[in-house]
Amino acid sequence: MTAEIIAIGTELLLGDILNTNARYLSRQLADMGISVYYQSVVGDNVDRLQETIENAMNRTSIIITTGGLGPTTDDLSKETIAQVLGLPLIEHEESKKRIVDFFKQRDIPMTENNLKQAYIPEGAIVLENDNGTAPGFIVKTKNNIIIVLPGPPSEMVPMFEKGVKKELKKLNEGVIFSRTLKLCGIGESTVANILQDVIDNQTNPTIAPYAKDGEVHLRITAKTNEESKAIKLIDAMEQKVADHVGEYIYTTDEKTLEETIVHIMKNKNLTLSVAESCTGGLLSGRIINCSGVSDVYKEGFITYSNEAKMKYLGVRKDTLEEFGAVSEETAREMAEGLIDKCDTSASISITGIAGPTGGTEEKPIGLVYIGVSYKGVTTVKKCNFYGNRQKIRTRAVVESLIMLWNKIK
Amino acid sequence: MTAEIIAIGTELLLGDILNTNARYLSRQLADMGISVYYQSVVGDNVDRLQETIENAMNRTSIIITTGGLGPTTDDLSKETIAQVLGLPLIEHEESKKRIVDFFKQRDIPMTENNLKQAYIPEGAIVLENDNGTAPGFIVKTKNNIIIVLPGPPSEMVPMFEKGVKKELKKLNEGVIFSRTLKLCGIGESTVANILQDVIDNQTNPTIAPYAKDGEVHLRITAKTNEESKAIKLIDAMEQKVADHVGEYIYTTDEKTLEETIVHIMKNKNLTLSVAESCTGGLLSGRIINCSGVSDVYKEGFITYSNEAKMKYLGVRKDTLEEFGAVSEETAREMAEGLIDKCDTSASISITGIAGPTGGTEEKPIGLVYIGVSYKGVTTVKKCNFYGNRQKIRTRAVVESLIMLWNKIK
Repeated sequence: MTAEIIAIGTELLLGDILNTNARYLSRQLADMGISVYYQSVVGDNVDRLQETIENAMNRTSIIITTGGLGPTTDDLSKETIAQVLGLPLIEHEESKKRIVDFFKQRDIPMTENNLKQAYIPEGAIVLENDNGTAPGFIVKTKNNIIIVLPGPPSEMVPMFEKGVKKELKKLNEGVIFSRTLKLCGIGESTVANILQDVIDNQTNPTIAPYAKDGEVHLRITAKTNEESKAIKLIDAMEQKVADHVGEYIYTTDEKTLEETIVHIMKNKNLTLSVAESCTGGLLSGRIINCSGVSDVYKEGFITYSNEAKMKYLGVRKDTLEEFGAVSEETAREMAEGLIDKCDTSASISITGIAGPTGGTEEKPIGLVYIGVSYKGVTTVKKCNFYGNRQKIRTRAVVESLIMLWNKIK
Repeated sequence: MTAEIIAIGTELLLGDILNTNARYLSRQLADMGISVYYQSVVGDNVDRLQETIENAMNRTSIIITTGGLGPTTDDLSKETIAQVLGLPLIEHEESKKRIVDFFKQRDIPMTENNLKQAYIPEGAIVLENDNGTAPGFIVKTKNNIIIVLPGPPSEMVPMFEKGVKKELKKLNEGVIFSRTLKLCGIGESTVANILQDVIDNQTNPTIAPYAKDGEVHLRITAKTNEESKAIKLIDAMEQKVADHVGEYIYTTDEKTLEETIVHIMKNKNLTLSVAESCTGGLLSGRIINCSGVSDVYKEGFITYSNEAKMKYLGVRKDTLEEFGAVSEETAREMAEGLIDKCDTSASISITGIAGPTGGTEEKPIGLVYIGVSYKGVTTVKKCNFYGNRQKIRTRAVVESLIMLWNKIK
């Protein structure tokens, strides 16, 4: 089973945005054992889009398009695809109702052009859009399956998960199962080095390492005709991996690192408070994105200024004057201040220099101190991160989560 | 002058990496007035790569490929392209010397397969690689220019800057200039509707709307032979747009909404404090990502619990009991509490239900109250957002920024 992913949108050809949809869909199809042979990007232009669709229909069986389903006149994916397939567009009552309701519920006036989105090629399977107005759809022809999805990832991804996956799974002869082991606190090249023999001798299941924002993910994929066989194969491979790097594996299901932490803390009746300086809320933002976090997360402070560090966390003026805001001592007092003031079982503090200005020879951009306090023991780690402001802040957040996980696991 | 960008590499088709090269090259070509008509991705497979190259040569004049130039057996871009062009590969003495030196200088033993990289199609312009071993090259045929570059961005980008730009500039007749007007507080379909006549009658400059995370961006692009003429054309178009939707334009340069706000507040000597419940630090995270924010951002609280709302913001127990944590009254007391406690000129409060649990009939998931206080006036907005937890939180952050911008602009 082969596939082509076509992203439609002039903004991609102008380099305004990255084609993250192609990556997401490629990964999803690979997991299902479908080989993506091509990715294409074409602008909002009828002739070139038509040529691209026809070309794809000749060379692969599954075609997934993203983008060009919106209400404006330059959104013409649907019209062009319907034309290539020789199908008329029919008003889909339910979609129309959903669009009208979408605006009503938000109390926004609906302009007439929005209703264009309720037209669907005759005979298509309609894919509801739970996060926007344009529905997607699936058309099956003699030789092809054409899946048409909206462009915004926040609409495309849930639609794929809810409506497309099950359709694609039906097509698959063998069954593909995969499991991802997520590791933290170890680099990709070290993992690859330790597991070299295992990786080189892979056949079924296969194993592939991916680096991701300070973590390493190992994806184990087995192809069999029965689920139970696949699970046995994957279990055996997981054991092999765990024998070598078990201490770094934080989860074998789909949980993120923060979800793993929240899960452990909830089970152990632990609570967490957080004080952030240079990361300014990013860490809390990630933790609070976990559903059901309210039993765990107590209070958070964004103490960007020295005053706030003293006022809310009890950092001593002497400490700030003698060692500076970005120092091991300040990070320690921030973490311990949280324990005192918030009556919490664990705390994280982050203070650092994210740039692009503010660095000195002694304290360069990228210098970040992270404090974690738990069960009366405070650990402070000095980190030197590289990259731009955004990257330094992200790395600091990940590192602080790894430190906390190591304490509570 | 039209172009196609072809990325070669199975890792892209597996979704292991993002195609950042295509975006970079698209942006570069757009700035030079070259229209990118297609981006393609194809794996390390001779037949499919050959088909892709031939297809590109038939439909565009400039072809840029990235990837597949390395020393291993699955790197076959050069061989395949040479075959399509009917050119023999000739050993390039200087490149050979550079490769040998590359390893010598790093004190790494060179494996024999590295020398394969010194072979270049006969008659090609060789592009030196200052950051790796594989040189790139340019071949000019009767109808096409084929530019072959390495895959790693750290090698590709400097090679493009140093060796390719000047070749492409020679080809170019006109010059392209563009400007992006960023709007907030208005939907894409409304903008498109209001500006329909302007958009429909566009020739030079062109104007294209893009929706982006609760904002609308309008990109105006002019093509002329002189910069000053282009700027005049763009200025005139900007005026036309401003006549219709001027009140929603927050910037005409590359600033983000939060950068625009920080810039205004810095100029007016204003300060900001923030209290977040369901967004849990996301808003602060975005604001603090602006460089130089330390003059503006004072303090931030993540008051997820009722206790924290009372303790740090002075929200009254009665208010929480009578109206609940997610209510207009609580949002108001949070925003006003910040002004009192933090001695700040402006404040933002967010309290809501981001889901997936916690919704009731009366207070459904997506209900968010946002308070903004400035110059003694507090405005609270009741919002009903849709989507998953992540999306609801992102929308709340954007909405709060729009509210603040409207007050201080």
